[in-house]
Amino acid sequence: MKIDLHTHILPPQWPNLRERYGYGGFIQLEHDGPGCARMMRDGECFRAIEANCWDPEQRLADCATHGVDVQVLSTVPVMFSYWAQPRDTLDLARLLNDHLAEVVRRYPRQFVGLGTVPMQAPDLAIAELERCMSELGLAGVQIGTNVNGVNLDHPSLFPIFAAAEQLGAAVFVHPWEVVGRERMTKYWLAWLVGMPAETALAICSLLFGGVLERLPRLRICFAHGGGSFPGTLGRIAHGFQVRPDLCAVDNAYGPREYLGRFYVDALVHDPHALRHLVDLLGADHVALGTDYPFPLGELVPGALIESMADLSPATRDWLLAGSALAFLGLDRNHFCPR
Amino acid sequence: MKIDLHTHILPPQWPNLRERYGYGGFIQLEHDGPGCARMMRDGECFRAIEANCWDPEQRLADCATHGVDVQVLSTVPVMFSYWAQPRDTLDLARLLNDHLAEVVRRYPRQFVGLGTVPMQAPDLAIAELERCMSELGLAGVQIGTNVNGVNLDHPSLFPIFAAAEQLGAAVFVHPWEVVGRERMTKYWLAWLVGMPAETALAICSLLFGGVLERLPRLRICFAHGGGSFPGTLGRIAHGFQVRPDLCAVDNAYGPREYLGRFYVDALVHDPHALRHLVDLLGADHVALGTDYPFPLGELVPGALIESMADLSPATRDWLLAGSALAFLGLDRNHFCPR
Repeated sequence: MKIDLHTHILPPQWPNLRERYGYGGFIQLEHDGPGCARMMRDGECFRAIEANCWDPEQRLADCATHGVDVQVLSTVPVMFSYWAQPRDTLDLARLLNDHLAEVVRRYPRQFVGLGTVPMQAPDLAIAELERCMSELGLAGVQIGTNVNGVNLDHPSLFPIFAAAEQLGAAVFVHPWEVVGRERMTKYWLAWLVGMPAETALAICSLLFGGVLERLPRLRICFAHGGGSFPGTLGRIAHGFQVRPDLCAVDNAYGPREYLGRFYVDALVHDPHALRHLVDLLGADHVALGTDYPFPLGELVPGALIESMADLSPATRDWLLAGSALAFLGLDRNHFCPR
Repeated sequence: MKIDLHTHILPPQWPNLRERYGYGGFIQLEHDGPGCARMMRDGECFRAIEANCWDPEQRLADCATHGVDVQVLSTVPVMFSYWAQPRDTLDLARLLNDHLAEVVRRYPRQFVGLGTVPMQAPDLAIAELERCMSELGLAGVQIGTNVNGVNLDHPSLFPIFAAAEQLGAAVFVHPWEVVGRERMTKYWLAWLVGMPAETALAICSLLFGGVLERLPRLRICFAHGGGSFPGTLGRIAHGFQVRPDLCAVDNAYGPREYLGRFYVDALVHDPHALRHLVDLLGADHVALGTDYPFPLGELVPGALIESMADLSPATRDWLLAGSALAFLGLDRNHFCPR
């Protein structure tokens, strides 16, 4: 079985948000012809996309080609829109989540949905998270690594994580509005250096801030193999050890204590890095995720895992399916009923 | 033989720079008693330090304790002061470099010096680099990962790197004024997440910008094991491959082409990460560096390398001495005359 934990989807169209909310900054889709569209923000092209971004049939055809049994769907992070008026972000989230739920309802054995919530307004976020879980049949939410520049350890955000734990909602953390992007305007560096740093910042914030300590049953997963966190853990752990006066102010336990307490996807594009993730977190906390349908992702889902002949069949099964199921809180029978 | 490539030193005192230049922002040393001082900036404590930061005798005693034969000395990066008026940064650099040269002259078999130059004024930087190499007997320079927020691929900086290649000056790149530090005010995160990101940004800028391509004989080394670059290389190289329109605009060769073309220090606090560096860059491009005398460094110089029983004697010798000598352009006999 092969589950792709990290894929992005958009509705084929949505209302004009500038008209709906009375101000700009939102993404709109402009269809240029069959199977081609551009994500536009205030008249500028953010990204050109193809039908596999919005068409479930196209996605299922790609899944069939590559032997993917299940895709976990989440919105494209630029849609988070935490910067907007809370009621407008909520409205947009509901629109996106309703679409997600509809796709999942049509193909319940092929797709799982992770919703989006207005993180800048915790009460509204929790209400929408509850709706995602109780009414929409989603498995949890995808959230950004920061909320308008505020890190994830901020006390205002804690109730959202607590609600997720309470509701059994899986939380997938994806980088967006990356730290230092003003220094990364060339060479795609905001994606190549900024996103890994942003993800490490999110992990460290949640660990050092004691969020994982206080919510031991929270199921949380970080995109792109945890960004730069795994590769720089030596420095991070050493820093915690030598300067507890700076590092241990909100949580007495160092970062290595939390290895195996959170999930990451396997999107590291390098067998050495993937082997390190498995050694560090355990195969049962690393899950195939491809960033489908975007080119920075793994273009042949599972190719890296399947290329590593030294992985045991059990390890391979955790990476390709088991870890995703554990993170999502779902059973294999959900997709393959006996 | 054991050479510590990455150590920091300050003069025991220097003139009042606010009075000397007519404005603030500079670091001054306030001695609080025997062996204790604080680095002060505009009346605020930047860092408390001890005599091993400025006293060569104390440093040599520590070296004797830990079997270190040679320390490579460079200033504390906060002293770079690229933000000041160029003539003032030059004046401060000359003051620091003269001190470095004096220490090296007194103990030529125990210390090697890397100067500092006013990177924001390339002509002045080159002139001071020439003075470091021809008059002061230094082995090269230590530079920051950015110059007032400008990355190292900026065309204005290229003549400095070209001069370093021409002069045979080693260039040690150390993170400072780290990217995104406004998001890293808690938990020492500017040091634990910011510095590795900053170093990755510097490496990527120099590779993607074609600086290493155009200067094949430049000897350049990055602190802290290259920061987050080695651990996220899969993503960086994949990005280069799938979006050459964004990544290959200034240099047609991907980042993996440059492995073994630059040096890093071995300051990664983790055997797995160090083994990865050796696999990736070759043992002959990884050099012991401890960040002495600061606590985020390796407190027992060489302890990590010596703890790794699987390293061959040849690999160990590269890590402990050979790579530093190659980077510095020095011969073993320089320190151990026959």
